[in-house]
Amino acid sequence: MKKLINDVDNIVDEMLEGMVCAYPGHIRRLEGLDVIVRADESGEKVALVTGGGSGHEPAHGGYVGKGMLDGAVAGAIFTSPTPDQVYEAIKATDSGKGVLLIVKNYSGDIMNFEMASDMAMDEGIQVEQVVVDDDVAVENSTWTIGRRGVAGTILVHKITGACAEAGNDLSEVKRVAEKVIANVRTMGMALNACTVPAAGKPSFDLEEEEVEIGIGIHGEPGVNREKIEPADATADKLLAKILDENIFNNGDEVVVLVNGLGGTPLMELFIANRHINKVLGDKGIKIYKSMVGNYMTSLDMAGFSITLLKLDDELKGFLDAPCDTPALVVPAR
Amino acid sequence: MKKLINDVDNIVDEMLEGMVCAYPGHIRRLEGLDVIVRADESGEKVALVTGGGSGHEPAHGGYVGKGMLDGAVAGAIFTSPTPDQVYEAIKATDSGKGVLLIVKNYSGDIMNFEMASDMAMDEGIQVEQVVVDDDVAVENSTWTIGRRGVAGTILVHKITGACAEAGNDLSEVKRVAEKVIANVRTMGMALNACTVPAAGKPSFDLEEEEVEIGIGIHGEPGVNREKIEPADATADKLLAKILDENIFNNGDEVVVLVNGLGGTPLMELFIANRHINKVLGDKGIKIYKSMVGNYMTSLDMAGFSITLLKLDDELKGFLDAPCDTPALVVPAR
Repeated sequence: MKKLINDVDNIVDEMLEGMVCAYPGHIRRLEGLDVIVRADESGEKVALVTGGGSGHEPAHGGYVGKGMLDGAVAGAIFTSPTPDQVYEAIKATDSGKGVLLIVKNYSGDIMNFEMASDMAMDEGIQVEQVVVDDDVAVENSTWTIGRRGVAGTILVHKITGACAEAGNDLSEVKRVAEKVIANVRTMGMALNACTVPAAGKPSFDLEEEEVEIGIGIHGEPGVNREKIEPADATADKLLAKILDENIFNNGDEVVVLVNGLGGTPLMELFIANRHINKVLGDKGIKIYKSMVGNYMTSLDMAGFSITLLKLDDELKGFLDAPCDTPALVVPAR
Repeated sequence: MKKLINDVDNIVDEMLEGMVCAYPGHIRRLEGLDVIVRADESGEKVALVTGGGSGHEPAHGGYVGKGMLDGAVAGAIFTSPTPDQVYEAIKATDSGKGVLLIVKNYSGDIMNFEMASDMAMDEGIQVEQVVVDDDVAVENSTWTIGRRGVAGTILVHKITGACAEAGNDLSEVKRVAEKVIANVRTMGMALNACTVPAAGKPSFDLEEEEVEIGIGIHGEPGVNREKIEPADATADKLLAKILDENIFNNGDEVVVLVNGLGGTPLMELFIANRHINKVLGDKGIKIYKSMVGNYMTSLDMAGFSITLLKLDDELKGFLDAPCDTPALVVPAR
């Protein structure tokens, strides 16, 4: 295993410290905890708290800031954060208007966020929860009942963050989050597995000509192991599975998120994006906005995912609203 | 070789197409050329044009936009753009106030940008040129007389771009570019080589325990091949070489750019950044701003570089000025 790390046991702690000291104007860390919160005063608004295992950087701490998240809780690598840490994040970010938890659909995350939610509600804090399950690769998986939550979560953060920033109340913010979740779908593939530092070796082995179609973001192998194909054919395969959902139709407007998994150069994501653009154009699906980059990674995994989100005027407005976080900035226009 | 590509011969063309279709509000491509220019009207101002081989994405097309570059010329992978393409970029971006060429110090780039400059000046366009040579790893290299231009180039783009956007004339914009160049230094290392698609195999071989210290951004091996050390010791080694320049002293303020080379997860860059922060703090060097991410890559190379730029009030002002490009956004405050 070749990684730019120190002690395997300190990775999350050192990573959070390195993230916070890079962006002191945006984020700070709750003392003694693996929780990132906004450095500025967010004022009286519904707070958004998310989290999950580490290894998905810039998710989730990189999306904390004005117009997006108020708190992000980091678990160990690919491991759910503990209920007490989530509870502290809720307490630290609640301004009295309540807290929405954005949880990716993994059984451990669901359980721990629910426990934290119960603890906070016992203290009189209003807490609601939404579960993101955008991955169309599988109906159930080793770690989930139902579909996994993957890169589409970033779009939930952005849009719901803008809704909260605009001063909407908790039920309204939750309604918008659920609208995004209902309209977002993702499918991914890997050229190479990632290496979890504590394991010290790749999470699965692929031959020189093999790829995995339908991977998640926790080093799990995909649904099919196949011979590598050109980028266009690979993008076709991922898109077909997403379009099979019958959500995205002629005349619809979408966001396209072409997400790198950590070890994929941007050049390759752009090559994939070119073809995605063409296929959607041929189907009369209009691209309102594209995002191409490493938004929700899986350590050093080489590969990518495609996410589509169907938009309406309300979602467009929140998508375009300004935000200012370490990993995503939308300037005021 | 496992890459998300189609035909090796079409990589640059497809990459540029995929980049432009992702950001139609920011950039467009000159028809039939490998030149990216601003999609909006930049108005009467000094134009900034840069370029170089492809494989460094998001450099350079990703930095075209308001407050940064006006044109970026893409050569074949790791290959200088041809004089005629640079000439077309100059012609397309000149508003009558002249054009500054920002060239990384590689012999091929220098030669081709100079030829283009001569062609444009023959037509009465004012053209000036600056050469970035921030890499402290080597005094000369296979492809350069003098030091190489690497990640520090991004800071030249940002600061000089703001200076041009503010309406300064060509000589003033050139003066500021040269001030940045005089005060910026970079040192990099690789955990693994990159694979140039046409070659189909890694540009050098490293054993499981080996790293290269002092690499450039074109797949060339480093100055020393060494046994892998912890992230902190690795960062110490790169920083020591930069600090040996005697530019960065107690009381100075700097930008720190921790740059991933394409295959390095953000987690590892943050771990390195933590230690860099500590070392600079111990030396009384104040970090005014940090940038951590994949800014100037080398295909899928795993590794990173550290760049320091010493700031004064003038440079701080231009650094903080708003910009809006696909790869870097600084919001108005």
